[in-house]
Amino acid sequence: MAIELCGKPISGRSRYETLIERRCYRSAGHTGKCDEYPFLAHLLQIAPRVAAKVKRDATKTTGAAWKSDDAGPNRIDRWVMLLPDDVLKNEFGINIASMKPQVRAKLRDKAATYEDCMDVAAMLTLNVYEMTNAPIPPPEIRDYLIGRFERFEPNSTRCIVCLDYLDFISFDLAQRGRAHIETAHANPRMHSPSNVGFAHRECNIAQGSSSLSEFYDWMRSILARVDEHQSQFDLVTERTK
Amino acid sequence: MAIELCGKPISGRSRYETLIERRCYRSAGHTGKCDEYPFLAHLLQIAPRVAAKVKRDATKTTGAAWKSDDAGPNRIDRWVMLLPDDVLKNEFGINIASMKPQVRAKLRDKAATYEDCMDVAAMLTLNVYEMTNAPIPPPEIRDYLIGRFERFEPNSTRCIVCLDYLDFISFDLAQRGRAHIETAHANPRMHSPSNVGFAHRECNIAQGSSSLSEFYDWMRSILARVDEHQSQFDLVTERTK
Repeated sequence: MAIELCGKPISGRSRYETLIERRCYRSAGHTGKCDEYPFLAHLLQIAPRVAAKVKRDATKTTGAAWKSDDAGPNRIDRWVMLLPDDVLKNEFGINIASMKPQVRAKLRDKAATYEDCMDVAAMLTLNVYEMTNAPIPPPEIRDYLIGRFERFEPNSTRCIVCLDYLDFISFDLAQRGRAHIETAHANPRMHSPSNVGFAHRECNIAQGSSSLSEFYDWMRSILARVDEHQSQFDLVTERTK
Repeated sequence: MAIELCGKPISGRSRYETLIERRCYRSAGHTGKCDEYPFLAHLLQIAPRVAAKVKRDATKTTGAAWKSDDAGPNRIDRWVMLLPDDVLKNEFGINIASMKPQVRAKLRDKAATYEDCMDVAAMLTLNVYEMTNAPIPPPEIRDYLIGRFERFEPNSTRCIVCLDYLDFISFDLAQRGRAHIETAHANPRMHSPSNVGFAHRECNIAQGSSSLSEFYDWMRSILARVDEHQSQFDLVTERTK
């Protein structure tokens, strides 16, 4: 990381606060109050739903959209999922053992340290500002992001799956009742800045639990079979002429 | 259709029975009792869950897996969805207007005539018997299916999306708590024998609401971009050597 961060402890309000110590993510030696999400200050003002999404996707597990006994808890801090089963059960009332294996695996896959989540939040913020039609950040946020990620390229954010450019206004487009843009992972089991980005909802769904390279290989193998069958069909058509 | 069917009316028990007249689908001039699903008789005995799936997928809409006011009705006869909004509301208590547009569209997309549903059921039965490791049908069912579809090719059923061969035992494999094989549509808005088949669950999810040709085009455009970026990356790497 190019700039040094303040890192002073900040008190939080979640029931899981005993697990981690929240930190100030402003630059070291800053003036004024400490702040955990200084990079989101501007988006919180002008696009609060986008800012909330960045925070939520970076730090929370996504659970099932519906409630049921075996669906597991919805939206809990990712670092909580690093705890062993018995601690989750005894201290937080989360009974991993009673969940279906696939729900359990999905929850555990979302586990990440507080530090990784905070790095992801900052990276997603950069990705937002680098979208087509994105708002222009105030100079201090722009410089902060450049300081942390050594880049700031307007109009460069692509869907990490289909590599098409993403437009900031897509955050407001609802499709099937959900946001058109989702947070996505090149490898769904790694929550770190280099592995996270935005994707179209359909692209994210199509990728499923595969890594991007697995997904591309899968597409190549399908298209090879499609093309082969097309040629066989052509051959048959040719023969019957 | 190569063989003529009996076609005599059969009485049904559903609350929507006034809408359609169920028919006998045995061959014309058959002896013994009329039967709506003669082609499923054998599967009902040896693989009842597969037979039930064929019947259900051919004739019912799939609704949401969970219950909520706007999720719409779950599993109702596809031909019911051909009725206008006011008839659905007044005669069947289904209030289409109160559903979200996407739920409404999804339900209406599943609409199909009784005749199409019955043809799909017979075609899916043929597809089951043509899977690898499928049970061998009794001669009368084999001949009936050949009579209707002019083919019977063991080990020939492929996933309609990825074109890989499907194995009958996959019906018993559960993945993410659901069947590994799903009924799928080359064009999701047409429920007819030539447009329906089986697919892997992941393939069906990846295809989403696109037609197969749209889905293949989408994959090709993604891979073209992936390859292009890969080359650009190679170029940059080359330059910095």
